Amino acid sequence: MKAKQVTIDESRLNTITCGPFPGSRKIYLPGKIHPSLRVPVREISQTPTQQSHSSGKDVSLNPSVITYDTSGPYTDPSVTIDIRQGLAPIRLPWILERNDVKELEHISSRYGKLRLADKKLDSLRFRHLRKPLRAKLNCNVSQMHYARQGIITPEMEFIAIRENQRIEQSADEQHAGQSFGANIPSQITPEFVRDEVARGRAVIPANINHPELEPVIIGRNFLVKINANIGNSAVSSTIEEEVEKMVWAIRWGSDTVMDLSTGLNIHETREWILRNSPVPIGTVPIYQALEKVQGKAEELTWEIFRDTLLEQAEQGVDYFTIHAGVLLRYVPLTAKRLTGIVSRGGSIMAKWCLAHHSENFLYTHFEEICEIMKAYDVTFSLGDGLRPGAIADANDEAQFAELDTLGELTQIAWKHDVQTMIEGPGHVPMHLIQENMTRQLATCGEAPFYTLGPLTTDVAPGYDHITSAIGAAMIGWYGTAMLCYVTPKEHLGLPDREDVKEGVISYKIAAHAADLAKGHPGAQARDNALSKARFEFRWEDQFNLGLDPDRARQFHDATLPGENAKSAHFCSMCGPHFCSMKITEDVRAYAKKIGVAPEEALKKGMAEKSEEFQETGSTLYQKL
Amino acid sequence: MKAKQVTIDESRLNTITCGPFPGSRKIYLPGKIHPSLRVPVREISQTPTQQSHSSGKDVSLNPSVITYDTSGPYTDPSVTIDIRQGLAPIRLPWILERNDVKELEHISSRYGKLRLADKKLDSLRFRHLRKPLRAKLNCNVSQMHYARQGIITPEMEFIAIRENQRIEQSADEQHAGQSFGANIPSQITPEFVRDEVARGRAVIPANINHPELEPVIIGRNFLVKINANIGNSAVSSTIEEEVEKMVWAIRWGSDTVMDLSTGLNIHETREWILRNSPVPIGTVPIYQALEKVQGKAEELTWEIFRDTLLEQAEQGVDYFTIHAGVLLRYVPLTAKRLTGIVSRGGSIMAKWCLAHHSENFLYTHFEEICEIMKAYDVTFSLGDGLRPGAIADANDEAQFAELDTLGELTQIAWKHDVQTMIEGPGHVPMHLIQENMTRQLATCGEAPFYTLGPLTTDVAPGYDHITSAIGAAMIGWYGTAMLCYVTPKEHLGLPDREDVKEGVISYKIAAHAADLAKGHPGAQARDNALSKARFEFRWEDQFNLGLDPDRARQFHDATLPGENAKSAHFCSMCGPHFCSMKITEDVRAYAKKIGVAPEEALKKGMAEKSEEFQETGSTLYQKL
Repeated sequence: MKAKQVTIDESRLNTITCGPFPGSRKIYLPGKIHPSLRVPVREISQTPTQQSHSSGKDVSLNPSVITYDTSGPYTDPSVTIDIRQGLAPIRLPWILERNDVKELEHISSRYGKLRLADKKLDSLRFRHLRKPLRAKLNCNVSQMHYARQGIITPEMEFIAIRENQRIEQSADEQHAGQSFGANIPSQITPEFVRDEVARGRAVIPANINHPELEPVIIGRNFLVKINANIGNSAVSSTIEEEVEKMVWAIRWGSDTVMDLSTGLNIHETREWILRNSPVPIGTVPIYQALEKVQGKAEELTWEIFRDTLLEQAEQGVDYFTIHAGVLLRYVPLTAKRLTGIVSRGGSIMAKWCLAHHSENFLYTHFEEICEIMKAYDVTFSLGDGLRPGAIADANDEAQFAELDTLGELTQIAWKHDVQTMIEGPGHVPMHLIQENMTRQLATCGEAPFYTLGPLTTDVAPGYDHITSAIGAAMIGWYGTAMLCYVTPKEHLGLPDREDVKEGVISYKIAAHAADLAKGHPGAQARDNALSKARFEFRWEDQFNLGLDPDRARQFHDATLPGENAKSAHFCSMCGPHFCSMKITEDVRAYAKKIGVAPEEALKKGMAEKSEEFQETGSTLYQKL
Repeated sequence: MKAKQVTIDESRLNTITCGPFPGSRKIYLPGKIHPSLRVPVREISQTPTQQSHSSGKDVSLNPSVITYDTSGPYTDPSVTIDIRQGLAPIRLPWILERNDVKELEHISSRYGKLRLADKKLDSLRFRHLRKPLRAKLNCNVSQMHYARQGIITPEMEFIAIRENQRIEQSADEQHAGQSFGANIPSQITPEFVRDEVARGRAVIPANINHPELEPVIIGRNFLVKINANIGNSAVSSTIEEEVEKMVWAIRWGSDTVMDLSTGLNIHETREWILRNSPVPIGTVPIYQALEKVQGKAEELTWEIFRDTLLEQAEQGVDYFTIHAGVLLRYVPLTAKRLTGIVSRGGSIMAKWCLAHHSENFLYTHFEEICEIMKAYDVTFSLGDGLRPGAIADANDEAQFAELDTLGELTQIAWKHDVQTMIEGPGHVPMHLIQENMTRQLATCGEAPFYTLGPLTTDVAPGYDHITSAIGAAMIGWYGTAMLCYVTPKEHLGLPDREDVKEGVISYKIAAHAADLAKGHPGAQARDNALSKARFEFRWEDQFNLGLDPDRARQFHDATLPGENAKSAHFCSMCGPHFCSMKITEDVRAYAKKIGVAPEEALKKGMAEKSEEFQETGSTLYQKL
């Protein structure tokens, strides 16, 4: 069953998905505190509005729209992409300037050394390995540590610029939101970023061994982020495919990517992904540790796990899911559940606890883990190993018992200045979603919540990107900082390229809907621009402003192909004969005629007419 | 551009989609008050659970699951489907027994007569036209009228049985819901149906000229319903395609279908759809009226519109969208909107009002319309002609002004015992959705709300089934009775067959998620059954219990094809090596071992052990 990969398919490395989005270009914004910063954003240009008046054609310009851009150098045609070289290590000078890291002569992990010494793997290996960095003795290189010392790092300023999306240039009106106690400023300053990281309400996953990273922040007072899971399994996929999946996922908007590989060559696969990833990479180290003991959970040891942490931390993994909250005493709480334990990591630890009748070694060694995390700045993603796997099991005793423990562990992590986020469910009916959020905020001191969905019903296998986008949008609104995507293949198989895209876009929708509902400053600008383009039948602009210009264009062309149709002032819904949107032109002309332009004069004029009408009109109700 | 259809493609009529769902059969439940009723439900059978114990194999049966079935006789292999004949008129005896209708010698509408006399249309015409029925003089044949007289009609008992889905046989536990003041009884009785219809909180769209109908109820104290729009336009589709789209939409779960045709032969198309539809058919009569004046809104007259109402009422249309709330004085309120008026019906009436500087004739003739509605039992769907077409325009003055008028009109309709529901938006960010529901309930006396989505963001053309499923699920939870679907092609083109399915399933998800959140009795049974099947790796049962067995099977087979994989105790996610779900077996075995079976004993035993642990474990936090 196992496809033994012995070499890299070079031709596939050359066909990685590159190129800008239509109508878009990447621009880079400079820093003020750190002037050398080049913060990438995407600029979507628009065509002018043609207005026909009796006096002839009039033209008004539509400003270009700036959007948050996760896609990295892959969408910048001025950058030459070479997967074999990896991306430029833009963070390296920032890291070295802090003067708190040392370069190691050799990697620390036993397993990593074995892999490196294995000549059979040479053909698979990423060739330009850097020497790993580690904090100097007694140093803590976490962004939280810097933040608590009042230092605004280049990462923090980068993020402030990135989050703002040039809001100062957007004069768009938008709805006041309802943010459930979030505290989003009208403009994100570097100092605000620092403060949020210092108090643990946001994290910047940014391993010192991942200098290719374009920093991103995860916290409830910032734009809602999404994660896409990739990874090979024992039954499918190759290194080239996984690199392409990562690039593909960030093209469509994934803010972070988790590599959940469980098959062959996961050490080498991860190296290729990291060296080519501009977004934070997360892993679940227990998955690889389990591979090292041939899948026998009971044979796991702290030593094997610790070696795995070092191995991955020195490769540059930015956050680790650690299931340290699955305590022995919680395991029997799952016995009466409909679907027991469904988290893979949770079940591995439960099995280990039962086999040894001992407490979870991730829990008992938690402070030692913290020591590793702060030596590389790896962020905790405390796993919810007892999350519900069915609507029936939502919000039960096991789930909330574990959450309490995650709250305890958060305090310990923070004691070490280690950045921490908390994972959440899962499968939850809509009316029980908010309880998850409010409990998490209270229990875990507002540490960022990172949820999988939640799925709001179990009856739609094949459509769980939709069952879960509903829950994701809601919990994002309530305060979740990052939403882990679910693809259409969830519960059924491994996602392919199209599934990854479908999952990412579903979750971009959920995250953006949450931003709008929270009233995130500037979030509505893109909606407004797209709606105006729609209203004015600027079809190309409508496509380009959307999350998926390709599909929008393709769907349009399925009914009305040809370039003419894209400048036509009608759509296939109503046909050329009559178009509801065109009426508004008449309305505006009429409004002008009866009351002259200003809205108030207009209202007044109409109010008079309406009173006049009501005198005659209201009699109608007595007539019959 | 117009495809002039001059004949029916007979071969396509023979290939209409028929046949049962896998693992399912249709059964018919009898009435008590009306014993001759045959209420269709779908029964999904399951395979037994194989449990391996040390003592050998043990088998436990899984009860079959009863689900609400909208698909009509098309999924009953014992029924011979002949589209040329139409479905059996099951309601005809019920209608005739009430002795309040008369058969008309000729159809009443002038336009209908012209079409009938046109020999060129013979080749297109449905051949087995019945003579139309109409209420006898001074009779009111609406279900609301009967309900208010204390009569439980066969339609009402049919609905009570249908809504219950044999809940008395389901012992499933489920979450208590949060229903925002809905008042759903633990079992639906015929008397409850009558009472809800009498007070206007639910409608049963059931034209006396649509005897093929399997009655359905729409109200906040019943299962949330969904509607699919079909219909040809000036640029595409034929009669056969539209009939197939209707059958296809109800196969996947659409509770009602709106025929929004605007192209050629819409009179004949509608006849074919009605004669073959077991679900209520809705229309927007102003669309056809507009065709009759060659698309020139200003040339519309009350007489042309009235003739259209008669024409469609005598064909059997069950509900009419009527945009009587678009008042002259409201039109200028839309002038400053980002996207003006986007409802087609709304813009037609706005244009008429402006052109004539007169009040909307649908408003001024509203009581005359009521007279027609009650003579055939057509239900009002009062259109929201000023609904927002963009996030920016949500919940504005124009929208809520019209809603107030719809509230007035509801009272007038109810004075005539005419069933009424209220249409709602549109494009609304999440945090503004609830206001729509609470205002509608208050303004319109709890008349059923029937919303389009709402879409929760405008940035995803090509994915508006998802942007809107989020809003639909939420507003359904808050109390909306029926959700009008949105397909992936919304804003871009006309939906094809696959789009219709995608839209319907997205909305079945939204409606079911809403039922779960409201705590609708028995709603969770299907989720529980599917989750149990998933947990026990009964793959076939998992597919069959889902909303789309075909896709679930296909997705599974894409990674693990072959029959063996469908009985395998693992999925492609984790591979054969390790499976999280299998851990629970160990947990249960362990639980049994340490505390014997009962949950309480188990908890007790574990609590002791956990205390024991905490004494040692808690010291860990001081150790480092």
